[in-house]
Amino acid sequence: MQTGLPKFHSIFSVDCVVFGFEDGVLKILLVERNEEPFNGWWALPGFFVQHDEGIDYAAERILYELTGLRDIYMEQLYTFGDVNRHPEGRVITVAYYAMIRLSGKNELHPTSNIVKKAFWHPIADLPKLGFDHTEIFEKSLDKIKRKISYQPIAFELLPEKFTLTQLQNVYEAILNKKLDKRNFRKKMLNYGILKELDEKQRGVSFRAAALYKFDRRKYAKLFQKELSFMKD
Amino acid sequence: MQTGLPKFHSIFSVDCVVFGFEDGVLKILLVERNEEPFNGWWALPGFFVQHDEGIDYAAERILYELTGLRDIYMEQLYTFGDVNRHPEGRVITVAYYAMIRLSGKNELHPTSNIVKKAFWHPIADLPKLGFDHTEIFEKSLDKIKRKISYQPIAFELLPEKFTLTQLQNVYEAILNKKLDKRNFRKKMLNYGILKELDEKQRGVSFRAAALYKFDRRKYAKLFQKELSFMKD
Repeated sequence: MQTGLPKFHSIFSVDCVVFGFEDGVLKILLVERNEEPFNGWWALPGFFVQHDEGIDYAAERILYELTGLRDIYMEQLYTFGDVNRHPEGRVITVAYYAMIRLSGKNELHPTSNIVKKAFWHPIADLPKLGFDHTEIFEKSLDKIKRKISYQPIAFELLPEKFTLTQLQNVYEAILNKKLDKRNFRKKMLNYGILKELDEKQRGVSFRAAALYKFDRRKYAKLFQKELSFMKD
Repeated sequence: MQTGLPKFHSIFSVDCVVFGFEDGVLKILLVERNEEPFNGWWALPGFFVQHDEGIDYAAERILYELTGLRDIYMEQLYTFGDVNRHPEGRVITVAYYAMIRLSGKNELHPTSNIVKKAFWHPIADLPKLGFDHTEIFEKSLDKIKRKISYQPIAFELLPEKFTLTQLQNVYEAILNKKLDKRNFRKKMLNYGILKELDEKQRGVSFRAAALYKFDRRKYAKLFQKELSFMKD
């Protein structure tokens, strides 16, 4: 290695994997690209970092410009730097991910001219995405699959008050398997991290289900006691 | 955002945080840089990615050239992309980290002319490092602090056979606090993931301590049973 060699410069981008949960279905935020040669491609919201912005800031800006979403807490997932990952030359990308509650507040209004539209798509029947975005999506799904085993991330996707069926749906969607209803409820209630409310589900006339809240204080205690090797 | 704008190109680097454990002390692998304007700086082993190599490959190559270590399993830690993190312009860096057993096999023989030498330094009295490498080191230490709560990473730092005192030393070094000896041993033995061997520590004439091995099969079971929310 010589220090005098000309330094290789790469184009640098960010890509955002935003999960949302609605009506029992786990969805991901996609855009339809507008510009050639990618016109019509479906992809994760992502674009190039500018010379005067940090990468975390770039991720927020680009998510906002391409989808209209803002104030989303995103974490770094992984950096993808294979030589041939982008058709237009060497582009190294940092992927970010987030999980959010879907509600009327999450309207999508892209302001960038590089996308035709932004939309939510169920992960269950996701078509092949542009670039290596299918790989990025799969890596983020792996991440939340592992994370759901030791952190209460399911609650980030649910409304503040939820039924046990909704909670089970989140787990089933992330783990991509059916769980036994009795067993799931027993385990979940045994953890002692759910607070049953004096309210029932609305809008159902018959056998309205009980609503629950997540008890953060009890979760923190459980985590310290059971999930930790070495807290005194 | 305009698609026609010239695309910003950044220099791209990797930095490696390698932890090693020896004689009860947790250490980190450093280099002394050789070239101006960084002559004499202490830093993490790291340098620029080439145009024709993936970033994972670059991390392995650079660790080998700057320290002589190879075949080290490194994982991505985080990507640092602040605008002003490097004194010579915009350099975005992917940090990798690893934990290894230190032994006679880990001799350090840099082949690159950008370093004077490579060496292990105790983390307990680490001086300020060049660039933002102190920040990168601290982020990696946070990572293993969190990880030690739910994964048996302490065993990656120990020889295959170890005493309970050595094991406690690893936890104390990573968590940066003294642990109660009786309590530590009780907890550790209760997990059932240690196998006591029919051997004693060598080279001590009086009260040689028992040697233990880590039982991966039992750990996997424990992890599934206790640390997981939703494995059936």
